[in-house]
Amino acid sequence: MGVLFNKIINDPVYGFITIDHPLIADVIADPYYQRLRRIQQMAFASLVYPGAVHTRLHHSLGAYHLMCSALQVLKGKGIEITEEEALGAKIAILLHDVGHGPFSHALEQELLTSVSHEEISMRIMQELNKKFGGKLDIAISIFNNSYQKLFLHQLISGQLDVDRMDYLTRDSFFTGVAEGVIGYDRILKMLTVKDGGLMVEEKGIYSIEKFLLSRRLMYWQVYLHKTVLCAEKMLIKIIQRAKELIDQGSDLASGSDPLDFFLRHKGKELHLDRFCLLDDYDVMGAIKKWVFHSDPVLSRLCSMLIDRKLLKATLQNIPVDPGLVEEKRAKLAKTLKISKEEAAYFVFTGETTNTTYDPTEEYIEILFKDGVVKDISRVDNAIIQQALSSPVKKFYICYIV
Amino acid sequence: MGVLFNKIINDPVYGFITIDHPLIADVIADPYYQRLRRIQQMAFASLVYPGAVHTRLHHSLGAYHLMCSALQVLKGKGIEITEEEALGAKIAILLHDVGHGPFSHALEQELLTSVSHEEISMRIMQELNKKFGGKLDIAISIFNNSYQKLFLHQLISGQLDVDRMDYLTRDSFFTGVAEGVIGYDRILKMLTVKDGGLMVEEKGIYSIEKFLLSRRLMYWQVYLHKTVLCAEKMLIKIIQRAKELIDQGSDLASGSDPLDFFLRHKGKELHLDRFCLLDDYDVMGAIKKWVFHSDPVLSRLCSMLIDRKLLKATLQNIPVDPGLVEEKRAKLAKTLKISKEEAAYFVFTGETTNTTYDPTEEYIEILFKDGVVKDISRVDNAIIQQALSSPVKKFYICYIV
Amino acid sequence: MGVLFNKIINDPVYGFITIDHPLIADVIADPYYQRLRRIQQMAFASLVYPGAVHTRLHHSLGAYHLMCSALQVLKGKGIEITEEEALGAKIAILLHDVGHGPFSHALEQELLTSVSHEEISMRIMQELNKKFGGKLDIAISIFNNSYQKLFLHQLISGQLDVDRMDYLTRDSFFTGVAEGVIGYDRILKMLTVKDGGLMVEEKGIYSIEKFLLSRRLMYWQVYLHKTVLCAEKMLIKIIQRAKELIDQGSDLASGSDPLDFFLRHKGKELHLDRFCLLDDYDVMGAIKKWVFHSDPVLSRLCSMLIDRKLLKATLQNIPVDPGLVEEKRAKLAKTLKISKEEAAYFVFTGETTNTTYDPTEEYIEILFKDGVVKDISRVDNAIIQQALSSPVKKFYICYIV
Amino acid sequence: MGVLFNKIINDPVYGFITIDHPLIADVIADPYYQRLRRIQQMAFASLVYPGAVHTRLHHSLGAYHLMCSALQVLKGKGIEITEEEALGAKIAILLHDVGHGPFSHALEQELLTSVSHEEISMRIMQELNKKFGGKLDIAISIFNNSYQKLFLHQLISGQLDVDRMDYLTRDSFFTGVAEGVIGYDRILKMLTVKDGGLMVEEKGIYSIEKFLLSRRLMYWQVYLHKTVLCAEKMLIKIIQRAKELIDQGSDLASGSDPLDFFLRHKGKELHLDRFCLLDDYDVMGAIKKWVFHSDPVLSRLCSMLIDRKLLKATLQNIPVDPGLVEEKRAKLAKTLKISKEEAAYFVFTGETTNTTYDPTEEYIEILFKDGVVKDISRVDNAIIQQALSSPVKKFYICYIV
Repeated sequence: MGVLFNKIINDPVYGFITIDHPLIADVIADPYYQRLRRIQQMAFASLVYPGAVHTRLHHSLGAYHLMCSALQVLKGKGIEITEEEALGAKIAILLHDVGHGPFSHALEQELLTSVSHEEISMRIMQELNKKFGGKLDIAISIFNNSYQKLFLHQLISGQLDVDRMDYLTRDSFFTGVAEGVIGYDRILKMLTVKDGGLMVEEKGIYSIEKFLLSRRLMYWQVYLHKTVLCAEKMLIKIIQRAKELIDQGSDLASGSDPLDFFLRHKGKELHLDRFCLLDDYDVMGAIKKWVFHSDPVLSRLCSMLIDRKLLKATLQNIPVDPGLVEEKRAKLAKTLKISKEEAAYFVFTGETTNTTYDPTEEYIEILFKDGVVKDISRVDNAIIQQALSSPVKKFYICYIV
Repeated sequence: MGVLFNKIINDPVYGFITIDHPLIADVIADPYYQRLRRIQQMAFASLVYPGAVHTRLHHSLGAYHLMCSALQVLKGKGIEITEEEALGAKIAILLHDVGHGPFSHALEQELLTSVSHEEISMRIMQELNKKFGGKLDIAISIFNNSYQKLFLHQLISGQLDVDRMDYLTRDSFFTGVAEGVIGYDRILKMLTVKDGGLMVEEKGIYSIEKFLLSRRLMYWQVYLHKTVLCAEKMLIKIIQRAKELIDQGSDLASGSDPLDFFLRHKGKELHLDRFCLLDDYDVMGAIKKWVFHSDPVLSRLCSMLIDRKLLKATLQNIPVDPGLVEEKRAKLAKTLKISKEEAAYFVFTGETTNTTYDPTEEYIEILFKDGVVKDISRVDNAIIQQALSSPVKKFYICYIV
Repeated sequence: MGVLFNKIINDPVYGFITIDHPLIADVIADPYYQRLRRIQQMAFASLVYPGAVHTRLHHSLGAYHLMCSALQVLKGKGIEITEEEALGAKIAILLHDVGHGPFSHALEQELLTSVSHEEISMRIMQELNKKFGGKLDIAISIFNNSYQKLFLHQLISGQLDVDRMDYLTRDSFFTGVAEGVIGYDRILKMLTVKDGGLMVEEKGIYSIEKFLLSRRLMYWQVYLHKTVLCAEKMLIKIIQRAKELIDQGSDLASGSDPLDFFLRHKGKELHLDRFCLLDDYDVMGAIKKWVFHSDPVLSRLCSMLIDRKLLKATLQNIPVDPGLVEEKRAKLAKTLKISKEEAAYFVFTGETTNTTYDPTEEYIEILFKDGVVKDISRVDNAIIQQALSSPVKKFYICYIV
Repeated sequence: MGVLFNKIINDPVYGFITIDHPLIADVIADPYYQRLRRIQQMAFASLVYPGAVHTRLHHSLGAYHLMCSALQVLKGKGIEITEEEALGAKIAILLHDVGHGPFSHALEQELLTSVSHEEISMRIMQELNKKFGGKLDIAISIFNNSYQKLFLHQLISGQLDVDRMDYLTRDSFFTGVAEGVIGYDRILKMLTVKDGGLMVEEKGIYSIEKFLLSRRLMYWQVYLHKTVLCAEKMLIKIIQRAKELIDQGSDLASGSDPLDFFLRHKGKELHLDRFCLLDDYDVMGAIKKWVFHSDPVLSRLCSMLIDRKLLKATLQNIPVDPGLVEEKRAKLAKTLKISKEEAAYFVFTGETTNTTYDPTEEYIEILFKDGVVKDISRVDNAIIQQALSSPVKKFYICYIV
């Protein structure tokens, strides 16, 4: 009677996370996974919420923990899940974000214009599968939704996946926005499977409502907070300016070889090895260096971000008047003695949207005691109905006062 | 009747932190203070406790919050504290750690051999005092203990200062080591002042015991955890090797100009401006770059740290046998084809100590109802007594398996 | 420089509650207030949520604590509140529930048919005012809304009063229904006063939405939980049966003199002194005794409640079919050999309603930065709108299986 | 593939408690177990800590929950535990307190002088075993330590049993004494079995230290708080006075038939059925009634307890001077016009002791990595050593001011 595999990791959110299989320990120990330590989960949200400095590694571990609970709940309800399937689902969720680059979503379209982080995650999983001799086959097919048991994929990527359950829980925890807290443990206990699809027991309706409202609150109060938004846009402007300078013939260097490569990279090829050398440190290192660059636009943007002297940002319900933008740019160009095109780095607009619940795209199905299945938006007296299904669009302008 | 100054910051530990004076908001907004965003509070502890990625900025804000509570409690007990003194004490605690360099304590002796972080904090406070036209005079005199009301300094730097109350609370929160939690709010409510000195009301004895025991637990379980210790020693070895290579004539570059400067810096001068350009990003950027350096010692140490393939570490109660060290080094030198001196970068020993409570140095005074004052170690039936007053020394060896 | 009045009470919800005025300590120490220790806040909710055994005394202390915070926030925003007004508001909230009888709302209409608990609270406050030589004058005028500063009354009884902020917080805490948690501290920080009325700053909109949703969730998941509802209806049936037996000439005794009095009491007179001898212990003592009563209806109802062998309850969206009720009663009358009228004690129906937010009755006003004031239901993209403004009515049937 | 048995109960301390076997659900639903709803866990501690009104039922459920975790941890380490043994251990802990009478420990020696609550628990378990057709055989043999696997009994009654882990956790939770919190989840994860005995892995040493210190703190700050102690002694005095009056021929009635019986009961017989009719409600009902009794001693004691106008209590390290007691009694006898014997109901002394850790009686064994087993008090640098092993005795006097 030997001691079984059993490793525990302290987690401020869930107490302890248990690693109960050597393959999972090996995946966690791999440099591909360890890289996630160097990518913050919430990019510049910490400029507003100073506690929000947790990493992608931490989030992935948390999502893995919730997956363990979800699988246990479903097994407890008699849903058949083999050991191999459980292991596959756990590895798939552990690696679901492994393809994220520096500052996660903020830079996703800037450094690698044509590859999504999901595709890169997929590529890395395939590399790991080679390394581990095919042991990730089921994980990969669950991840790319080619596995026959749909609900396993839905747990990783769906309306009620453990990914968003963890990020909402974790992000509200680390930001200290207590109202963003969701009842993840109750939702998990209410999960069930019918006809191969993941659904929620009737008793869980109010928990789901709270989950959707918490998400709504987190979006408007945190993820799309005007200051957070503004900082992320400034980061994008910095990368764009650096690339522009390079295009104009500058020998601008970032201090990081892989970042220098991707700033100059034009094609659609991924260069996985180089990509995996990149993380937040390369980008922040570059920004710190460029504070002293001779280009006044780049230098000013960088020092503003480093010293948290951000552009002023305003969010409003109607589009920003183009005349106003024009005027502010003209004035700034004069003051700073830069061109109007350059002034556009400091005065710019855009829009951002969020939908509380879109019943045409999202499906949270409620299983009633009598066997009937209804979408959450069609339940009697639902808080989630028509009026909330159209996206709320907000318009922002960032500018120098 | 105008609206008073009132700004709130979300904090996962205390809920909300209130900034109630424009000068405090200005100090926080200053680049000197904002730099603390880029210095993690616990260096490499996150390699064991993945949640422990909070920053010095966050800790300083927390300590400021506790200072506000402490001052309110003392005022509520009739202790005289003027508005100016309260403001001074708040600013002093906000800035108490502003002089920390990259990776805080871990590198304190490596980059600037002869200047403590307290001295640098002092220097920065003086710079800020110039900038703010002398408004930090009281803060500075409280900080350097030249202010007449001793207890204000004791709140910043003493056995029961709000610095350690916050870091114990915060570090246990972010590591998820729930047992490290101290009853900071109860301790604060038990504080009082007698004859100008800070003390604790009799009813607070058990809370103080728990505080000291929590500190003990945090030391052995977290701060001096063998893996955390080992990673920090590896960081030091990396810096030492880099400096050695430079001394041998290498033109080794770190990617960061200020770090390059300090790696070559010999004298005792501080170069405050350059120092304040340094933070964790410079050092981690360098380590990432040196993974590809041609020196096998530097390169191996760096890739081990980046990929979390750390040296093996053992902690024990007796000194490590020098013969064993010699033997391991010889064997490694052979395997890696490096010199024995170089092998010493991978096989090394040291010692570390911690004292639960040293009554000859520490003074936590208990004020009894009858007016008697006793040191906590002399109270009847105290858990804190003689046996705990001598430092516990442990010896470690780090090596490649 | 003397020590000020300062007494602290541990509270699991808020940490510490501070009593900072001797008059408040005296009010708390008074037997009128201490009686609230013997009245549970949530009647029979503990039959479903075993932690929910907290008392009215505990809730009143909590509401007092939130009042202290609210007043401090408003003062911090420059709203003028004198020391006397603050003291009055604190005492008013402390005593707002002092008129509750046994099992609070559940029995409010049974023992004293024509007097509300608010009227009794008022009467007790007047008694206390005599005892304390008129020191409760302001408290009373705030309580009965005759004080000129409307917002003080609104803090005690209004859409965002500290009463419901505490009971939602406390009830969700003690039931363990974590999703019922509201962001009371954030809401408090967002409170402000305009034109004498209490309102919420624009930034607090999402917190208010969550507050209303949490209330909705607590109603359907806890307060109107079918088993809780059923137990409370059974309690009413027990009291009704006891009164019926007395009316029929039984000398039924409850073991409690004041309860015996009120079971026989017909008029509209209050008998305050006798009323204040009543609490949960009298009623539960009676039920325990009546388990052995010779009347099979009374005895069976009592033993069912004591042993938690409750009637089966069903909640539905449409009225219960009267034929079904008739049929169940007939069948039960036969089985138990009781009359159909007696069977109605075990088979009965009713309805219950809850409104998420009724804009014609409720007013939560949002103060926008530009000075505009809007009801929460009229804010753009509000979750709280028309569809939620009509009451949701549910119908229940309780019966023996 | 059927749905398995699965019932969840909300618990504010642990989130959810899962009932995963129908027999456990049946035991919980039994009137013997439901009676525990009417017995508060901490008797009169709520007079100081108003949140501490949780019940024995709640505590037993919590201990059951921890037992489930402990068994899972041990199984995960390869310790053999059959399904029947696990079920037995769970039922045994669920019922370990079922024999408690009104106000638990406070009245244990007053109503039934010669039977411990453990014996009554045993008797009730035997009754239930008959009812459930022998299904409690293993539970009973684990409870009375006749089962071959010692560690199962140790989990129920030993130095690290789940009983005290739950009560320390739960009592500190409901009192709001946050510092009493223990790291129950970490301790559970560190449990192991060697040679049939329960022990703790080396890594758990600091958690055990904190556990013992938390217990120490809870004893002095809560369980033996002078006001709590005083209220419980007053309760005993009330019962003693009632019995004395009965012995003197009074026909004193309590309003409760079973309580009347036990107040007159002399022999050693248990009368289990009658005993199980008793709970806190009978005793509190009696005290409320006796406020109006003609005996001035009984009446005064009762109204003091009901109105929380308690005797003044002092705790000290040396025995109370008998002369002082004599003097206070004489003076009181004069003032109240009662005999000196009667005055002793209001002026009395006693002693109370607590031992932090007694290595001659308690055994918490630490299993080191090298296989060595040491008592926690013999580990190097232990906080728990000789000095703490002798009981701390305190002396109290209660009196009327």
